[in-house]
Amino acid sequence: MIAIQDLYPDDFAHCYGCGKSNPSGHRLKSFPVGDEVVAHFTPRPHHISVPGFVYGGLIASLIDCHAMATAAAASERAAGRQHGDGPVPRFVTAALRVEYLKPTPLGPELEIRSQVTERSEKKAIVAVTVAAGGAITARAEVVAVRMPKTMGNPAGIQKTS
Amino acid sequence: MIAIQDLYPDDFAHCYGCGKSNPSGHRLKSFPVGDEVVAHFTPRPHHISVPGFVYGGLIASLIDCHAMATAAAASERAAGRQHGDGPVPRFVTAALRVEYLKPTPLGPELEIRSQVTERSEKKAIVAVTVAAGGAITARAEVVAVRMPKTMGNPAGIQKTS
Repeated sequence: MIAIQDLYPDDFAHCYGCGKSNPSGHRLKSFPVGDEVVAHFTPRPHHISVPGFVYGGLIASLIDCHAMATAAAASERAAGRQHGDGPVPRFVTAALRVEYLKPTPLGPELEIRSQVTERSEKKAIVAVTVAAGGAITARAEVVAVRMPKTMGNPAGIQKTS
Repeated sequence: MIAIQDLYPDDFAHCYGCGKSNPSGHRLKSFPVGDEVVAHFTPRPHHISVPGFVYGGLIASLIDCHAMATAAAASERAAGRQHGDGPVPRFVTAALRVEYLKPTPLGPELEIRSQVTERSEKKAIVAVTVAAGGAITARAEVVAVRMPKTMGNPAGIQKTS
């Protein structure tokens, strides 16, 4: 299955966290799974906070990109389109609220899961969890908004509902 | 003047966002200036969200590290010690709330400023702004807590008040 981020228009596929066109970035890949969106990411040894634990800024970054992908997928679904039908709209972050419930061990693959809890045409609220070894270590609520035209005007995007 | 992060004990100086011992990291440097703490950081071209704008995950990361340094400096000041007197305690993030007020242009140096709005021996709440070219583009509230002993036991740290 193609990742949601790989359906972003080429002109908007440079994101440091998840863009397919950013060779220096994290290239997070998020996939629709039932009512959720799921991603897996294994932090690298330099993504450290203090020895043994993952840097909180990386966790916030993964949550951010994953939530934008979740909002984009929900927007497509609401418009009656299936995942993979074509390019998806780009959302940007209006607010990011992360609670670090416990330190996240550095080493295991992380699982990031999300659901849209509220949405309109231009906005979505996304609930996200991050788990390491089956234990949730961070929880977040993210407000995603449709990318304003002042940030660019992507080609190939259909109107969403 | 030495940066607050460069006063973290050597065993806890690996942070991807601000550790002096992480050659792959951002190495953010925060300095006390009056009642505030100030840092400057110029994002690199690959720290992009969409063309022309800074990746929000980087902004959250800089806020995170800057807030922890702010909490550490406030803890030292409350204990009657001056900046530079010795190693400072490590705080970790309990909660991070970022509002992205407007897109942050990619190119200019960013200025990150913070103040402690509330503190106790083990916890501080830190208000942070991020500005580009004099305009504030993001605002945050961060809850910092003293690093729990389960995350390590740093040498050379005095008790804080």
